[in-house]
Amino acid sequence: MAEFTKEQLLERVNTNHGAEGNARVRAITERIVTDLFHTIDELDVTADEFWKSIAWLTRMGQTGQFGLLTAGLGFDRLLDIRQDEADQKAGRAGGTPRAIEGPLFVAGAPLSQHEVRLDEGEPEGEVFVMEGQVLDLEGQPVAGALIDVWHANTQGGYSHFFPGMKPYELRRRIQADAQGHYRFRSYLPPGYAIPPGSPIAELFTALGRHGNRPAHIHFLVAAPGLRTLTTQVNIPGDTYIDDDFAFATRDGLIVELEKNVAPVGYESLGVTAPFTRSRFNFVMQKAVNENEALPLTRMERVAG
Amino acid sequence: MAEFTKEQLLERVNTNHGAEGNARVRAITERIVTDLFHTIDELDVTADEFWKSIAWLTRMGQTGQFGLLTAGLGFDRLLDIRQDEADQKAGRAGGTPRAIEGPLFVAGAPLSQHEVRLDEGEPEGEVFVMEGQVLDLEGQPVAGALIDVWHANTQGGYSHFFPGMKPYELRRRIQADAQGHYRFRSYLPPGYAIPPGSPIAELFTALGRHGNRPAHIHFLVAAPGLRTLTTQVNIPGDTYIDDDFAFATRDGLIVELEKNVAPVGYESLGVTAPFTRSRFNFVMQKAVNENEALPLTRMERVAG
Repeated sequence: MAEFTKEQLLERVNTNHGAEGNARVRAITERIVTDLFHTIDELDVTADEFWKSIAWLTRMGQTGQFGLLTAGLGFDRLLDIRQDEADQKAGRAGGTPRAIEGPLFVAGAPLSQHEVRLDEGEPEGEVFVMEGQVLDLEGQPVAGALIDVWHANTQGGYSHFFPGMKPYELRRRIQADAQGHYRFRSYLPPGYAIPPGSPIAELFTALGRHGNRPAHIHFLVAAPGLRTLTTQVNIPGDTYIDDDFAFATRDGLIVELEKNVAPVGYESLGVTAPFTRSRFNFVMQKAVNENEALPLTRMERVAG
Repeated sequence: MAEFTKEQLLERVNTNHGAEGNARVRAITERIVTDLFHTIDELDVTADEFWKSIAWLTRMGQTGQFGLLTAGLGFDRLLDIRQDEADQKAGRAGGTPRAIEGPLFVAGAPLSQHEVRLDEGEPEGEVFVMEGQVLDLEGQPVAGALIDVWHANTQGGYSHFFPGMKPYELRRRIQADAQGHYRFRSYLPPGYAIPPGSPIAELFTALGRHGNRPAHIHFLVAAPGLRTLTTQVNIPGDTYIDDDFAFATRDGLIVELEKNVAPVGYESLGVTAPFTRSRFNFVMQKAVNENEALPLTRMERVAG
């Protein structure tokens, strides 16, 4: 029988397998395919609309920017909310809130002890120092914690993704000292915007949405026995702080800025005039297994 | 407010737009995003599972083979079934059944009058001639109809996609004569299989499914005032004829083979010994508008 109804076709697509395969992949695929069949039918999606969407998906695929798509459609934040819920059920609470990693992490940034300058060459914008301690839930310092920090340049671009930037520009790894202290000098970054003219910009324009994120700085904090913390802090006062493209800003992650701080004690970071400072402690939960404590990004966790 | 529940997040994702944008894109995106939020929640999709799927999608994107994905998950056939239903409602019936175009058409094949050899160089396999007439629903010949024909080589590969093949190998455009007659010589193609080791093969292995299509030949038939016909014929006897990866085989499109046909009259195609022949007429419906009669593939229709 080679003639079938939509329902019979769907049944075939979902059940027609000769080998066992992976039951979980089958179950998730079956659900997604079924929903899409119904969407096409109920919203009366035409063949032209369908192929136009596939042409768009093909252009998306050439850019590799699916991580921007998932962020902008709320999936990254959804995963964080789900993890928060699971934690709550498991009675795990406290510490610095998690925030989305975003798609622009690059592993292998240069490592420094205790402090580092993220900015290189001529100073840009407002001289900014962020400093604090890595602590556990009992308030004890986490000696030697590893802090990956990365942020955008003055044009909103991230190194390794934005043309003309040096490798690892504005990306560093800091090892906290024996008291868990870290500090770094940089400048206050601007917000981020999705690449103009890209397939992702095309979609968000059609959705009537902007592609702006408020100014933020990314962190991945790891230490043995503690749960790896992926988070971001926001710079206060940004237009988009309550209207983030990625729905990722969170209470408790907007830093305070101290203006006109005296430079005494900051000479090793090249600070010689009053500057802007922010103090922020990273508070880490205990890991319940070794995997949770690995210093891995989301893609490193699933690689291989 | 930067803290919200999953439901509040979804509401934001679906409604938070500052510009009008395209209402249709918004409606379809809202439906798809909502379904995916529910899928993640109800099937308890983990962050690792989510990022693994995005890593796979990124690899898929590098191959550009979304057209194989849509075929294998039944969407191409679904669109045909939906069009058949719409035709039935509109009282449009008759003629050669449509069949999926597939993702491997290439525009611009060399044009020949009335007849052509698709195979080049040394003959391969069984000498095969397909011939017939292009007719309208009243049985009248369609003079000068344009027939694009394309099929796989002995290894199941299509030129422009499979390494080592010549440009337009096994792809030709034939203009039927004043009586609508066409014929071409080639060899009986084998089936097609999705590329081994590709991200698409990875998915279908996980689904426990094979990636084989039964032996077939593709056609796109166009003529002024008639509805462009995209179809395929199948070679009888193939193992996969009722188990097509793309769910695309149809009643009425399995050709009959006449074996040991005398070569008299086929000298212009280089046939000098008994050969295998198939006779097949393409029967075309009237177009109800100019767009339907354009000689365009699915991607040409949505380009620009």
